[in-house]
Amino acid sequence: MMKKATHQLTKAHNTTLVLKTIYKNDGVSRAEIARITGLTRTTVSDIVADLQSAGLAHDAGFGYSAAGKPPILVKITGSSRQIMCIDTSEKIFAGALIDLNGEMVFKETIHLPDPLGPVSLETVYHLLDRLKAKATAPILGLGIGIPGIVNTQEGVVLQAVHRGWRDLPMKQLLAAHCDFPIYVANDSNIAALAELTYGEHRQAANLFLLKIGEGIGSGLVLGGKIHEGETYSAGEIGHLSVVPDGAACNCGNRGCLETVARAQILAEASKHFAKVHLELPDEIRNAADPIPGLIKLFHQSDADARAIVFSAARHIAGALASVIGLLDIHKLLIAGVYAPFGQPFLDAVGAELKRRVLSAQSKDINIHFTTYGDDIVLRGAAALVLQQELGLP
Amino acid sequence: MMKKATHQLTKAHNTTLVLKTIYKNDGVSRAEIARITGLTRTTVSDIVADLQSAGLAHDAGFGYSAAGKPPILVKITGSSRQIMCIDTSEKIFAGALIDLNGEMVFKETIHLPDPLGPVSLETVYHLLDRLKAKATAPILGLGIGIPGIVNTQEGVVLQAVHRGWRDLPMKQLLAAHCDFPIYVANDSNIAALAELTYGEHRQAANLFLLKIGEGIGSGLVLGGKIHEGETYSAGEIGHLSVVPDGAACNCGNRGCLETVARAQILAEASKHFAKVHLELPDEIRNAADPIPGLIKLFHQSDADARAIVFSAARHIAGALASVIGLLDIHKLLIAGVYAPFGQPFLDAVGAELKRRVLSAQSKDINIHFTTYGDDIVLRGAAALVLQQELGLP
Repeated sequence: MMKKATHQLTKAHNTTLVLKTIYKNDGVSRAEIARITGLTRTTVSDIVADLQSAGLAHDAGFGYSAAGKPPILVKITGSSRQIMCIDTSEKIFAGALIDLNGEMVFKETIHLPDPLGPVSLETVYHLLDRLKAKATAPILGLGIGIPGIVNTQEGVVLQAVHRGWRDLPMKQLLAAHCDFPIYVANDSNIAALAELTYGEHRQAANLFLLKIGEGIGSGLVLGGKIHEGETYSAGEIGHLSVVPDGAACNCGNRGCLETVARAQILAEASKHFAKVHLELPDEIRNAADPIPGLIKLFHQSDADARAIVFSAARHIAGALASVIGLLDIHKLLIAGVYAPFGQPFLDAVGAELKRRVLSAQSKDINIHFTTYGDDIVLRGAAALVLQQELGLP
Repeated sequence: MMKKATHQLTKAHNTTLVLKTIYKNDGVSRAEIARITGLTRTTVSDIVADLQSAGLAHDAGFGYSAAGKPPILVKITGSSRQIMCIDTSEKIFAGALIDLNGEMVFKETIHLPDPLGPVSLETVYHLLDRLKAKATAPILGLGIGIPGIVNTQEGVVLQAVHRGWRDLPMKQLLAAHCDFPIYVANDSNIAALAELTYGEHRQAANLFLLKIGEGIGSGLVLGGKIHEGETYSAGEIGHLSVVPDGAACNCGNRGCLETVARAQILAEASKHFAKVHLELPDEIRNAADPIPGLIKLFHQSDADARAIVFSAARHIAGALASVIGLLDIHKLLIAGVYAPFGQPFLDAVGAELKRRVLSAQSKDINIHFTTYGDDIVLRGAAALVLQQELGLP
């Protein structure tokens, strides 16, 4: 029963299964694929033939055989497709072409003169044109990361405060210029997806990724899946209250995490710091971006520099304590502006967490910076397209 | 391929599918079951016969037929099994027998003289004996709700502060006295499961249940499943900081939600309240439990009574705001000591939430008290056994 109805689904499922197996095992024989997937040799051979004629896989040399003919190994043809990736999450927009093996074959960044003006959307179009011009293989799809709330089903940016976007039908706008699939998603959510796909935390069941830049957001992986929430706005950790009666926040409340830890706060503290720390070289003291000066003295254990950064670390830990208390997640990743402060910063977050979290939950807490630094959202865009188009990984 | 290996799994799966279909449709024909499940008539008839010989289902009258013989309807035989349920979550322990239809056929409560002493475990044994004596059908299993962190795989109570239990092998201890399956779980988690199984919020995908009594805990349903966390301690909302530099908490921090909203805090405020509110009847003012006096004047809109309760409501909303911000969950249920304050209490929580949550997330927030009042954990124990033993609902 239900045989006809499920036949096509079964084929798609089996194709994804075979593709995944080739993807995970770099060079694998048809017999081995059959063994791993439980499919028959015939089914595997047919599917591999289909994948090869689509250019997605190729035969690549021979494997070992104790007796008889050595088996032919199949590999993903990484260069057979390219994924267009656009990151609009910070004031520097980025575009990249990433192939199926995760190789970044092209990248370009553009500094936005006015992050809130119409130039932000124009820059997206511009990056799209550049990526089209630079592509050297068929495009699997376009993924774009947005610093805000995104209806991922419709591809509509519901709200992105730092871009002035509201109910912007991003997917529809871009579709007019593309003949390939387009996926629009929250920047932190796909950053978490990047860690699941490419990072050291591949296949983690539960993971929390905190992204700190112009704004503060987070991506939440529960049971191996991104948790988007009822209205696509899960992970709004930037507006957790961490300083009672603290500074007023854009959101209308006071003392939100964003008011004490986002990039601008760090930049302002750095500016003041550079002014009074005359021992810094003039080119750092007078630089438009004052943060490198803070980083320099922080790593020389300057007490003032450490005080600034550790104060932010404590506030961040306060918000993370709520995450651990509620979700009992132990794998925490941090992306963004605090990465240059390295292990001392992570240690400060960890120490404060230990103080604030129940002892039963504080064991095995695991805090790292993200694997791909500034490229984490571009990687996430690629991961999103891989997942949606090929069911990978 | 894999046919032999999957045959038994398929049979178990199909049996659960048929059982679920009968359970959801009160009175359904074999033909209808076949249509709903997509299984063949023969498979359905065989499975129904198996269920009937196990006593789990029975033929119950005839359905409507436009032409030809009217079909025989199949129903779950609710009384064929009873589930033992024990609730250790408050100072009043409870035991109950609940049948497959959710009918509570017996219930007994015992007030613990010393919630931290050995009497607590003795009371569990005593309730077990009483339930055995009162059972009038074969026992499907025992479910027990614990106010603490439970390794549900092993049935070990890792920590239950309010009972003085630590690494207590509850399942193993009880198994010596039982010849049926035993399931041990956190009280708030199974309370949430009860809402998914019996409550008005049946089949909600995402749901947050806050339980306030001796302690404060929560149960978290994400994607239709209880989220237990990495170390079985998700939902520790009682130790979210809501009052900066507030009163010291057992956990070592200050200003946790428990320090301002648990039952004891309400009782202390009520005691003071009763002392100064001479207009209350003497039997209320001198009662061991002073809360009824507070409830009485609260519903007469007494300003002092409202101030006490609304202050707690604001703190509770503060913690719930973190939940909504992080998880974007809109279905919130509250169980426990605040239920008698009814809608005015919920309105106060809702108003504070609206103030504290991002506007995008504040739409459609839905706050209710739990469906089953004080029986919510007993119901949860029954739901747990139904789920684990029969795959229901």
